[in-house]
Amino acid sequence: MVAGFEEMWGDLAPVGRSPQSGGYFRQPWHSAELELRAWFREQASARGLVVEEDPFGNLVAWWGSTAADGKVLTGSHLDSVLDGGAYDGPLGVVSSFAAVDLLRERGITPTRALGVAAFVEEEGSRFGRACLGSRLAVGATDWADARELADREGVRLGDVVEGPADGARSTLLEGVDTYVELHVEQGRALIDHDAAVGVCSTIWPHGRYRFDLTGRADHAGSTRMEDRADPMLTYAATALAAATHARATHQRATFGRLDVRPNGTNAVPSQVTAWLDARADSDAALADLVEAIRAEAATHADHDGTAVAVTPESVSGEVRFDVPLRDRLAARLGGVPVLPTQAGHDAGILQEAGIATAMLFVRNPSGVSHSPFESAETADCLAGVEALADALTELVR
Amino acid sequence: MVAGFEEMWGDLAPVGRSPQSGGYFRQPWHSAELELRAWFREQASARGLVVEEDPFGNLVAWWGSTAADGKVLTGSHLDSVLDGGAYDGPLGVVSSFAAVDLLRERGITPTRALGVAAFVEEEGSRFGRACLGSRLAVGATDWADARELADREGVRLGDVVEGPADGARSTLLEGVDTYVELHVEQGRALIDHDAAVGVCSTIWPHGRYRFDLTGRADHAGSTRMEDRADPMLTYAATALAAATHARATHQRATFGRLDVRPNGTNAVPSQVTAWLDARADSDAALADLVEAIRAEAATHADHDGTAVAVTPESVSGEVRFDVPLRDRLAARLGGVPVLPTQAGHDAGILQEAGIATAMLFVRNPSGVSHSPFESAETADCLAGVEALADALTELVR
Repeated sequence: MVAGFEEMWGDLAPVGRSPQSGGYFRQPWHSAELELRAWFREQASARGLVVEEDPFGNLVAWWGSTAADGKVLTGSHLDSVLDGGAYDGPLGVVSSFAAVDLLRERGITPTRALGVAAFVEEEGSRFGRACLGSRLAVGATDWADARELADREGVRLGDVVEGPADGARSTLLEGVDTYVELHVEQGRALIDHDAAVGVCSTIWPHGRYRFDLTGRADHAGSTRMEDRADPMLTYAATALAAATHARATHQRATFGRLDVRPNGTNAVPSQVTAWLDARADSDAALADLVEAIRAEAATHADHDGTAVAVTPESVSGEVRFDVPLRDRLAARLGGVPVLPTQAGHDAGILQEAGIATAMLFVRNPSGVSHSPFESAETADCLAGVEALADALTELVR
Repeated sequence: MVAGFEEMWGDLAPVGRSPQSGGYFRQPWHSAELELRAWFREQASARGLVVEEDPFGNLVAWWGSTAADGKVLTGSHLDSVLDGGAYDGPLGVVSSFAAVDLLRERGITPTRALGVAAFVEEEGSRFGRACLGSRLAVGATDWADARELADREGVRLGDVVEGPADGARSTLLEGVDTYVELHVEQGRALIDHDAAVGVCSTIWPHGRYRFDLTGRADHAGSTRMEDRADPMLTYAATALAAATHARATHQRATFGRLDVRPNGTNAVPSQVTAWLDARADSDAALADLVEAIRAEAATHADHDGTAVAVTPESVSGEVRFDVPLRDRLAARLGGVPVLPTQAGHDAGILQEAGIATAMLFVRNPSGVSHSPFESAETADCLAGVEALADALTELVR
C-alpha cells in the first residue's frame, strides 16, 4: 500500500521547518535535505521504482526498463531557499509519485520508461548557483568549475559530493526526450485567471550580479559626515534606484543579500557587498535594467567618494518551452491558461539542453513564494496531480 | 631593563592583525586579546608593578602601596573594534607604562599610588555594550544583567568571565580619586590646531538604537515590484535620511551594522535589522536627531507596507570632564588645545562615577579611527608620553 498525496505531504511537513518562522531550511547535503533524499528512496521503493543517482546527487526513480531511448521524465526538486515555503519543489516531486499511482489505478502501462526526478541544489541557496544539479546533469556546467564553488562556511561542493571520474559526465538523462515539471505558481496569474492549473510558456531572462562597494572605515562618532566615504550610503541609494527602475519598466530588481564589513555598530563600513537579482521580459530589457542600476551606483559612488565594481555571477537568457508539447498538453488539459514565469527552473535547463520540456503550475492563493506564506489548496494540488497524470498518459504511450 | 615605547609598540603590532585588511580584531577573551592581557602582565612585572584583576577582567598594575586613598589611575583599553586601528586603546596603555618609566628616570617617587589600567570590552564589539568593563568596575552596570549579554555566536558574557560572588562588586577602583586617559584623537581637530597633544573637554551624548524592519519574504522573480513589502527598501530610505539629517544639523548618524533575513539573493527579505549609532552636541539635539530618523523610517514603512520598531540599546548623556583638573593639566602642558570628542571612553564612565577625570589626545594625521588607516606619528606619540608623564608628575606628588 503506497502513500497517497496527502499522506506524503504530511510526511514532509516537519522536515527542515523553523519553529520560529514556519519557513523551511532545506539546503543540499544538510540534515533536512538528506532526510528528504531518504524519503524519496523510500517512496520509490514502495512503488517498485528503481532509483538511479548520478555523481552530483541528482536522483531519478524509474518505472519500466531504461534500456531504450524516448524516456519521459517528470519531477522537480526537494531543496528550499533559506526560510522558504513548503511547496516550491516538493509539490512537483510528491505530485509525480501520486501521478504514477494514478496511472497505475487507470491500468496504464507505459511503453516508454517514466522517471520521477529530484534535482539537487535547484535554488542555489547553498553554493550560489541556481539549478546547479540539472546544469551538471546536462553538462551545461563543468564539474571542474562547480567543485570549487564554496558555501558561506567555506565548504566546497567537491567536499560534499564525489562528482564524476575525470572527464566523465552524468548519464542520468541519456535517452530522455521529454520532461514535464509541475510546480506551485510563484505569482498571481492563476488567481486572476480563476484556474487551478496552468501551462508555462517561457522563463524570463535572469541574472545575478555582485556589487562590491568600497569606502573607508571610520569612527561613527568622531568622523564628520562630510569627511566620510561610506559605502552603505552608496548601497542604499543604489537599492532604491534599482527598485524604481524595475517598477517603472515592469521588470524585477531585488537586493536580498548583503555582506557588510566590519559590520560594527560604531564603525562606518569599509565595504558593502550586495547581490542584485534582476529579471526582465527580454534579454535586451535585462541588459538595459542592469546597466541603468550599475550607472546609478557609479554616480552615487562618485558623489560619496566610494568605488563600485559589478561582477555578473550568472546570467541566463530567455527560455521558450517546446511549443508543440505545450500546445498538446494545454489542449489535453481542456484549454488551461498559458503564462510566462519570472522564476528559473530545472525545466528551463533541460529545455535548453534539447529535451522537449513543459511546465504545469498549480495556483498559489498567497501569490507569494520563497516565503513561509507560500501556499496551495489541497483541492488545487489534487487537480495538479490529475493534470500531471493526464499529461503523462498522453506522453508515455 | 624595561622596554621603551617603540619596543612595546613593536611587540603589539602583529597581535590580532588581519593580513588582508591590515586592521585589528582584538575582541575580549578571544586569542589576540588574551595575548595582550599576558603582555600587560609581563610589562607590569618587568617594572615591579603589582597587577590586580577584578572579577570582570579589568586589570590595574600598581606602583606603590594601595592601602591609602587618593590613588591616581592612568591607562586605557586593549580591545579593538572589528577591523580597527592599532592606536585606539593600546596607545594609552603603552604610553602609561612609558610614562611610569619617565617618572622613574626623573627620580620621582609618587606619594600617592599610581595605577596603569586596562579596561575590558571598551568597544562593545563582542557583547554590544561599549565601556562594559569600566561600567562594571564602577557599578554603573549590574552583573546580573551583564552576564546575560550574548555575542554573535550566542556565547554569554557569564560563560567567559566568572563575575563576582552574588551581590559583590569590583573593588578595583576603591580609593581612586583621579584618572587620566591618553588616547589617539579620532578626528581632525589637532591637525587643524597644528598641535601634537590636546586636552578633552566633553564627550558628546551618544546612543545606539536597533531598528527592526519587518516585511514579507517573496520570490525575487515572480513577485511584481508593486506587490512587495520589502523591508530592504525601507531600510535604504532610512539610512539615506539619517545621513541627510545628521549632515544638515552637524551631528552624526551611522548605520554600520545590518542583519538581513533570510539574506538570499533570490528572495525579497522578510526582515532587516539595522543598528543606528547617533551622536549629537547636546542631549536635546540627540533626541531630536533620533526622533527625526525614526519618523522617516515610519513614513517609509507606511509607504512600503512594512513595519518598523525602534529599540534603544544604550543611551548616554553628555559627559563634562572635571574642569579644575582639565585647566590644571592644560596649563601644565603649556596651553594645549581643549576640544570635545564624539567618541565614548572609559574616562567618561569614571568621570560620571565621581572620579575627577581628564583625557589627553594625541594627533592622528589620518583623521580616521575604527579603521586600519588610523595612525599617529612616533614623534607625536613620544610627545604624548611626555605630556602624560608631566600630568602624572603634577598629580602623584
